[in-house]
Amino acid sequence: MTRFALNRATTKHWPLPELVAGCAEAGVTGVGLWRDDVAAHGAAGAAALVRDAGLTVTSLCRGGFFADPGWYDENRRAIDEAAALGAPALVLVCGGLPAGSRDVDAARAHVGEALGALVPHARAAGVRLAVEPLHPMFCADRCVVSTLEQALDLAEPHPADAVGVVVDTYHLWWDDRVWGQLARAGRAGRIACFQVADWVTPLPAGVLLGRGLPGTGCVELRRFREAVDAAGYAGPVEVEVFAEEVWARPGREVLAEALAGYRDHVA
Amino acid sequence: MTRFALNRATTKHWPLPELVAGCAEAGVTGVGLWRDDVAAHGAAGAAALVRDAGLTVTSLCRGGFFADPGWYDENRRAIDEAAALGAPALVLVCGGLPAGSRDVDAARAHVGEALGALVPHARAAGVRLAVEPLHPMFCADRCVVSTLEQALDLAEPHPADAVGVVVDTYHLWWDDRVWGQLARAGRAGRIACFQVADWVTPLPAGVLLGRGLPGTGCVELRRFREAVDAAGYAGPVEVEVFAEEVWARPGREVLAEALAGYRDHVA
Repeated sequence: MTRFALNRATTKHWPLPELVAGCAEAGVTGVGLWRDDVAAHGAAGAAALVRDAGLTVTSLCRGGFFADPGWYDENRRAIDEAAALGAPALVLVCGGLPAGSRDVDAARAHVGEALGALVPHARAAGVRLAVEPLHPMFCADRCVVSTLEQALDLAEPHPADAVGVVVDTYHLWWDDRVWGQLARAGRAGRIACFQVADWVTPLPAGVLLGRGLPGTGCVELRRFREAVDAAGYAGPVEVEVFAEEVWARPGREVLAEALAGYRDHVA
Repeated sequence: MTRFALNRATTKHWPLPELVAGCAEAGVTGVGLWRDDVAAHGAAGAAALVRDAGLTVTSLCRGGFFADPGWYDENRRAIDEAAALGAPALVLVCGGLPAGSRDVDAARAHVGEALGALVPHARAAGVRLAVEPLHPMFCADRCVVSTLEQALDLAEPHPADAVGVVVDTYHLWWDDRVWGQLARAGRAGRIACFQVADWVTPLPAGVLLGRGLPGTGCVELRRFREAVDAAGYAGPVEVEVFAEEVWARPGREVLAEALAGYRDHVA
């Protein structure tokens, strides 16, 4: 279980001090944080909470949203927070179409421009930018980067240690081209994060909070884990589930179930 | 407006006799029917209603759902109904994963086998099978064919007049590879139907009934129409929208709005 990491969004309402204590008790050594944690505890405070519990920060969610005004300054702040936390990667959810726009090609081109603008600051801070392709159902309103292939194309102009990609099973499982792209990502050394969630239907209104803990849905999770391993990735496996019914349960219980699902369906 | 066709699912609760009269009054000459219409009026009765109003049937929705037991006989019946209606194409929504399965590759392979099994009957009946790629958010529960590329790969073993594809803007707009695949579809003469709906957010629970009339969302509809034209398609343009709030309105009003949206955003 040494690769298992808990993305704190899975237990959204579990206060960070209890969360890190619960992880330590369960033998979990990695936690993916969100900028909410930084807002609540300060970067130094959140970093100390994690470190003092014997854990490391596996990633920070999230930067991106490049269609928003102020994206440049906001992303520079997110990079600084990742650096202060010791997070090796800043996950980027790149944003949807600008208000009123139908030009998805232009929005994707703008993501490339935004990466170029941010890379110098990220390199100086020692933080890797991690472009996350989101499921195509989020293309309009959350992320115009819809496939691993697009994410790799966007990363390609930059050094691999400056820009990588996030492989999230929830977003990519439907894509028959993903296996070839995972191999490509491996050859280029681009896999910055590997996140696991399962696909369950029916989807809820708004579709954001419809994910399942590992093993509760239809995704070939182990096939993904084996494919990222074959691509040379040896980092943490973050379980990241957004779901109201999961959030409503005690953090400790959710963590135990995530660990069991990881063991039975991922490891 | 000679290419505009009304897919009757857009005005789901408009009884067919009133619908065809409303179309004729509005100068609309094509209507896409559903098997519900055949169930309600019989194939000969539905065909007569359409013909007597001076319209033609542009397509029949739908066959497919190849993960269901009984798919073979059900699809043969659907082919027979299409033939009796004079519908040139039977739209196939190919079905999701079998219950309890996580094997999307096997489900996709099974679609290919099912097409092979149905082609002889379809050819004998003079009905073209039209494989419809559905948005990846439907991959688990409605259609494992998620991209135009997959649909064309599935069609490829068969003569173009036996198996074509459906191009539906709602399902394909997010895909940066679709433009190249539309050109491929044109070269192979595979475009059997062209359907138009717009993408609007937020998506409703279950995500099936979240479509918008042309012009209400973020899809580059005219770019699609120009691309299918450039690919050599000269057939009808069916407006097909599933949405509770559209269904709740009078059919005549919805038709007028669909026509206006077609004129302003598609034609």
